[in-house]
Amino acid sequence: MKTERPFDEELKLLKEKLLEMASRAEEQIALAVRGLKDREERLTCQVLEREEAINLLDIEIDEMAMRLLALRQPMATDLRFITSAMKIGSDLERIGDLAVNIAERTMDLLKHPQLKPLIDIPRMAELAQEMVRDALNAFINGDDKLAKDVCERDDRVDKLNDQVFRELLTYMMQDSGTIARAVDLILIGRHLERIADHATNVAEDVIYMVRGKTIKHRAEEGREARLKTCAGGE
Amino acid sequence: MKTERPFDEELKLLKEKLLEMASRAEEQIALAVRGLKDREERLTCQVLEREEAINLLDIEIDEMAMRLLALRQPMATDLRFITSAMKIGSDLERIGDLAVNIAERTMDLLKHPQLKPLIDIPRMAELAQEMVRDALNAFINGDDKLAKDVCERDDRVDKLNDQVFRELLTYMMQDSGTIARAVDLILIGRHLERIADHATNVAEDVIYMVRGKTIKHRAEEGREARLKTCAGGE
Repeated sequence: MKTERPFDEELKLLKEKLLEMASRAEEQIALAVRGLKDREERLTCQVLEREEAINLLDIEIDEMAMRLLALRQPMATDLRFITSAMKIGSDLERIGDLAVNIAERTMDLLKHPQLKPLIDIPRMAELAQEMVRDALNAFINGDDKLAKDVCERDDRVDKLNDQVFRELLTYMMQDSGTIARAVDLILIGRHLERIADHATNVAEDVIYMVRGKTIKHRAEEGREARLKTCAGGE
Repeated sequence: MKTERPFDEELKLLKEKLLEMASRAEEQIALAVRGLKDREERLTCQVLEREEAINLLDIEIDEMAMRLLALRQPMATDLRFITSAMKIGSDLERIGDLAVNIAERTMDLLKHPQLKPLIDIPRMAELAQEMVRDALNAFINGDDKLAKDVCERDDRVDKLNDQVFRELLTYMMQDSGTIARAVDLILIGRHLERIADHATNVAEDVIYMVRGKTIKHRAEEGREARLKTCAGGE
């Protein structure tokens, strides 16, 4: 059996692994969208090549967390920190997957001429990256205010995605030759929106960890309105 | 402080909650796709109304699991069971969200005439539901063979989704009046594909729980081929 490190040192190592994973996930988003925007297949390929490292970090973090739970039997704050770390690892891993999905769509798009110069998609990517970065900083510093701020930014990404979606529909309507490419871009918009959702999940976990109660599943914008439509329709 | 139940009884309660959550998630998929196929707004509305119950179960399961970790300090198998339960709760909650996404798209689609009778999408939904059901049964019975089988079914859903996608592209190319509806259906196909992915995640967690080692992030189909394209392109 390996020598055991003091508990605090193991927690520190867990934090470092999560930060490393987050910075890799962020980089994957940046590379994927840069490959798309600048039409650089080399960057797109890098996203595919670097996926494995993120997946391995997810497994490593899970194993560290399980070991801490089993051997240290932590209470209260430490327990919440460790279970949050496991969840955050899963979210970061999904973010990595989504960056790969963007790269895959880009490989498709690069076979054809560019549909239009991209403005909103790179903007969405920047916002999503900042959300990932800040959510992780909030986690490391136990900063629930910053985490709350991350949650609030999610709407901006959603709105940009709606804008991207509507604009691309217009392209398709006007020229059926753009359809396949426009659909690829719509899906890329969705992937970025989901990356922002995962960053929001992380931020919600941080708030839970700090405050000891959940703010998850708060009424989402539009939900009430939809339910009202339903009630009216009966 | 409330009276504590024996450990085994608490674990049993946790299992029951997860089964309840899974059966609700399954029902949401069925309702959402039936609302779409039969063009029944009433069913679509039910999906929106029932979302809350699933979200509450997720929180309840998380709290039960945290309490068990804190008070019982379980080891080995029980520890893996409890942390798996937390992860499975998150996956089921996302499945519930995706059913809501399908319902939202359906609300849009119901405002316009039907594009085409749906065959493959309901088939995808059935497969996805079975995957959710079997993944949970595998979890409850610690059946890693069944879990493996669930993982293997994921490809069938992916293939159906590709088929749906290609068929809808053809519709759009031929008649630009179908574009908005076809895009909605493409997104619904994606949602179902992701539901199957979450069922696969659950099954992978079961295999980890039973065997004590992960099979996650096994090389996905197509990944190697893509990487080869990259290597060749440099």
